[in-house]
Amino acid sequence: MATDDASADASGYVQPEIDVPALTALLDGEYHEIRDLVRTNLVRYASVLDEADELGTDAFRERVRELVVEMAATGQTGMGFPKRYGGGGDVGASIAAFETLAYGDLSVLVKVGVQFGLFGGAILHLGTARHHDAYLPDLIAGRLMGCFAMTETGHGSNVQALGTVARYDAGTGEFVITTHGDQASKDYIGNAARHGELAVVFAQLEVGEKSEGVHAFVVPIRTGGDVAPGVRIEDDGRKMGLNGVDNGRIRFDGVRVPREALLNRFADVTPDGVYESSIDNPDRRFFTMLGTLVQGRVSVGGAGVGAAKVALSIALRYAVRRRQFATTPDAGEQLLLDYGLHQRRLLPLLARTYALHFAQDVVRGHLHEVFSGHTDDPQARRRLESRAAGTKALGTWHATRVVQECREACGGAGYLAVNRFAALKADSDIFTTFEGDNHVLLQLVAKGLLTDYASEFEDLDQRGMVRYVTGLAVETVIEKTSVHKLLERVRDLLPGGDEWDQEAGLLDSEYQLAMLRYREEHMLAGVARRLKRGVDQKRDPGAVFSQVQDHVIAVARAHVERLVLEAFTDRVRAMPEGGNRVALGLLCDLFALSTIEADRAWFMEHGRLTVQRSKAISREVNDLCRKVRPLAVDLVDAWGIPPEMLRAPDLVG
Amino acid sequence: MATDDASADASGYVQPEIDVPALTALLDGEYHEIRDLVRTNLVRYASVLDEADELGTDAFRERVRELVVEMAATGQTGMGFPKRYGGGGDVGASIAAFETLAYGDLSVLVKVGVQFGLFGGAILHLGTARHHDAYLPDLIAGRLMGCFAMTETGHGSNVQALGTVARYDAGTGEFVITTHGDQASKDYIGNAARHGELAVVFAQLEVGEKSEGVHAFVVPIRTGGDVAPGVRIEDDGRKMGLNGVDNGRIRFDGVRVPREALLNRFADVTPDGVYESSIDNPDRRFFTMLGTLVQGRVSVGGAGVGAAKVALSIALRYAVRRRQFATTPDAGEQLLLDYGLHQRRLLPLLARTYALHFAQDVVRGHLHEVFSGHTDDPQARRRLESRAAGTKALGTWHATRVVQECREACGGAGYLAVNRFAALKADSDIFTTFEGDNHVLLQLVAKGLLTDYASEFEDLDQRGMVRYVTGLAVETVIEKTSVHKLLERVRDLLPGGDEWDQEAGLLDSEYQLAMLRYREEHMLAGVARRLKRGVDQKRDPGAVFSQVQDHVIAVARAHVERLVLEAFTDRVRAMPEGGNRVALGLLCDLFALSTIEADRAWFMEHGRLTVQRSKAISREVNDLCRKVRPLAVDLVDAWGIPPEMLRAPDLVG
Repeated sequence: MATDDASADASGYVQPEIDVPALTALLDGEYHEIRDLVRTNLVRYASVLDEADELGTDAFRERVRELVVEMAATGQTGMGFPKRYGGGGDVGASIAAFETLAYGDLSVLVKVGVQFGLFGGAILHLGTARHHDAYLPDLIAGRLMGCFAMTETGHGSNVQALGTVARYDAGTGEFVITTHGDQASKDYIGNAARHGELAVVFAQLEVGEKSEGVHAFVVPIRTGGDVAPGVRIEDDGRKMGLNGVDNGRIRFDGVRVPREALLNRFADVTPDGVYESSIDNPDRRFFTMLGTLVQGRVSVGGAGVGAAKVALSIALRYAVRRRQFATTPDAGEQLLLDYGLHQRRLLPLLARTYALHFAQDVVRGHLHEVFSGHTDDPQARRRLESRAAGTKALGTWHATRVVQECREACGGAGYLAVNRFAALKADSDIFTTFEGDNHVLLQLVAKGLLTDYASEFEDLDQRGMVRYVTGLAVETVIEKTSVHKLLERVRDLLPGGDEWDQEAGLLDSEYQLAMLRYREEHMLAGVARRLKRGVDQKRDPGAVFSQVQDHVIAVARAHVERLVLEAFTDRVRAMPEGGNRVALGLLCDLFALSTIEADRAWFMEHGRLTVQRSKAISREVNDLCRKVRPLAVDLVDAWGIPPEMLRAPDLVG
Repeated sequence: MATDDASADASGYVQPEIDVPALTALLDGEYHEIRDLVRTNLVRYASVLDEADELGTDAFRERVRELVVEMAATGQTGMGFPKRYGGGGDVGASIAAFETLAYGDLSVLVKVGVQFGLFGGAILHLGTARHHDAYLPDLIAGRLMGCFAMTETGHGSNVQALGTVARYDAGTGEFVITTHGDQASKDYIGNAARHGELAVVFAQLEVGEKSEGVHAFVVPIRTGGDVAPGVRIEDDGRKMGLNGVDNGRIRFDGVRVPREALLNRFADVTPDGVYESSIDNPDRRFFTMLGTLVQGRVSVGGAGVGAAKVALSIALRYAVRRRQFATTPDAGEQLLLDYGLHQRRLLPLLARTYALHFAQDVVRGHLHEVFSGHTDDPQARRRLESRAAGTKALGTWHATRVVQECREACGGAGYLAVNRFAALKADSDIFTTFEGDNHVLLQLVAKGLLTDYASEFEDLDQRGMVRYVTGLAVETVIEKTSVHKLLERVRDLLPGGDEWDQEAGLLDSEYQLAMLRYREEHMLAGVARRLKRGVDQKRDPGAVFSQVQDHVIAVARAHVERLVLEAFTDRVRAMPEGGNRVALGLLCDLFALSTIEADRAWFMEHGRLTVQRSKAISREVNDLCRKVRPLAVDLVDAWGIPPEMLRAPDLVG
């Protein structure tokens, strides 16, 4: 090995030994049983990875459906449903199962997500007993396949502006579902092109002449395999990836469904046509309904981390096997991972993957608490929604980046379909878009930060946010938002208040956390100030928001990265002494410092990093990479990815 | 439009009007005729974009072959060959044709590259009259399909270490080609799995008991459609993309070819087994041979820019058509491109695409001069090779990044195969790897910088580079390298020598150039110093190189970006006054400042940017984005991409 063990020894550093099974147990956590069940199923059905290449679209769609039904029979996919309907009654376990399933073929994963997460989740959370009794048992068993028909050709992110209409006909006691114009077609809907019998359709409810906003309805789209009358379905055709999922476009031409088809947990229409809801404010009602679907975002974020793990496992194993170029004439060629650049390319990504794993643990925990009713109050829901949005965005962007870097790090071999990168790259690409476009999600996070999740502001749109800021002095905004708390925390950490401890060790986790907290707090105050100034100058709100938008995204990202570092740090601190703790400590430092390094320009611009210290951080990142290098294979082994899932015969040997 | 026209007006800024046909003429340059021929062919065969989705692998491979042969008949693909063999006799035109072909299906492009660039190029540049007479006419017409069999399973980047052996048998006057072990199989070879009849095989030449290094041989691999005796061919199977190209794995079991099969332009073996070469130094001989193949890198770099243009054309047209979210209740939803973040995501990429276009013009010009014999001396060749390596790396990474960002900017619609992103992303992915892994290419650029391309150092391997630096004081290195010249140039530009003019306008192109020149010069000196220090401390050369490697890559990137900015600036300065010049001036500023902004941490760390000025640059980038926004569609229209190539019915309307 060409790394400098000598200098490492001189500094007293002793390389830790990793206990891989113990680390796997830590990572699997309380959900080790369901994760092991999923692993077993992944291995049993490993041939699907080949079938994804070999079968045509039609045959592969059928195969994926078949697998999903077979997996459902093992109990793996129904963990999130009540036991009385045949589910597992454990929300957290359902997410853990989904995360683990992401090690395998992603069409299977997404079909599971569509069927049990989106369709099943909507029935469960927006419906009431009549819907549960009617649909859940068949749905959980995979006998009844369904769609989640929200997105339209013309509207993805802005769900409140959907074009599909559901008019209540008091004469017949039915809703009439109509697609007005091509842009209102339900689009990209999973299970629509082939397998769906029912669809949960989101439409503007009209009762009398009044629009009551977006509500969800159960609409049969196929009976006995034939498309239902008044329904038109087009196949979305081949996609970049996920071709085992049958996405399609659905139009409704005055389709009539009974009054009971309204998923009526939050609102209902009486037979004679009176609209009733337990939530008066229409915006709050809308966001409450959407909020119940948060598990989809938690699932996709975790799946992104899973896909990244597969890519890194392949690339790192390849890098300790593949040699290229000799450093001295008498030596053999050098292993790729002994090149400093290769370490720089892969090891900070390894560290970030671990960090996101622990952040996912936290958000899964919040989800479980809220949806199991342990801690279900408006504040906990808002915290969950913000956190789910943020970790989904960072986790899925991470997946895209990691898969690309790992493919390149495996050269031409990485391009062959027989290795997994082709499928991983094509299939995971859409993760950054579905379940909420990442940029829109980060705006949601920022909105939450700006309003401290106060319920009276949750229905603010962009314009509203700007107007809200107009009406308040900046100090009041700060007072009202989490900035205040953040400032206090930073002050607590750093005696001397605003004075920075330039001498704190770079590997001091309090220093690292304080840096990320400061960045978040400062950016947040900056955004509030800019919004206020723009509106004070009476400029067009759209233009004001447009100009501040990159700062809005930046503050959200800073916030989520701080949460991720806290999650990682907390976990390392709670570990028992030993090699595993030392190893994860190195990774945590590598994540923290490479995150600070990536934004070191900002820290220098804001007086929180001197030039000397900035350079020192880059050196420390290099040093940490060298220390992590001998641990890399153990660290990916600990994820417990079944070897069959690596499917890279040329790469991992 | 929600951009702030008011403030723009206040500053006296007048929005330029773009003359699109005139801009297209500028971009097409002297090669407008061949580019128009390619455009015509792209439209004629536009159905291939659908066929790529619809046909199975076998049928699509045949279709691509058919198209390539038909295109060959129009003269489009043979521009680089001598007229006496049926070619066009214009190297520059052949590259321009390839760049334009990149607007279409990339399997067609790569098949053309394999056949006429790699296979044809090797016959032309490494062979002599006997090979030209025997093969070129059929090859140019596409009647004789061939392979370029260099890469092996075990060796991609390190070509000098290839495992295939060609032993000269003086008894029969034949070479015996043998694949020793699986790792020596020729791999990922285009045209191998199906269509190739001949292969140019790179192998270690053994004459007597002596190894003479890597040489190229013409070896029949199929006769009458059947695989030749002693040859084994495996299909590489499905790939992430480019499935119209039949890549395969070739093994040779003692295949005998006549003495004349050696491509003997630079070396030959006499009938009785005496090795002869006009170049004594084996390393220099090897690099001279490889150097003749530089056109492949120039081609791929240009193709990357072409693929980026297609992606940006789709995403920017979509962004001026798609609306999402309203800014005020009485207004309609806002166009995506009026969001500041959307401008930030796409417009600096537009600027960089223009910059890389002009940089490509320069490297194509160098190639044309060298290969047309106008300026063919060792220095010009080395300059060309370095420049080709650098622009290939930056152009292809740019393509990967642009395609990804544009897909995400088109949301779910961008994921459907009916739009072009799926194919663009999958097909262009390998550009960063083939024709030289980008990181290895940047090391090549850095090596050139460190030795000022002095011929006596060109054969240095990494170890050699380290040893070379050992033997010299840093000053001598600086003296010998282009650092010296760079320093002089910087001093010329900035009166007061090392004193930086902090007051220079950010939009002063001399300031922008001086910044990039300073970065390059300073990084180069730093790398030399680090290498020297490592070796002075008698550390393992591999470890020293490993630690310096990220700086090595950084200096190469800085060098190439400086060249790119110079190319852009030179072109803008040479334009006549008018709207087009103003528009390209804005783009050039946007490229320069977003490039500096991206590395502003480095500039602050090295005392070349104050905190205030760094922030001012970010503000200026935002302001430039707002100014470029109304010009965006004209700027992509000027590329003259046939609308059929955008193939994005849902996105561009």
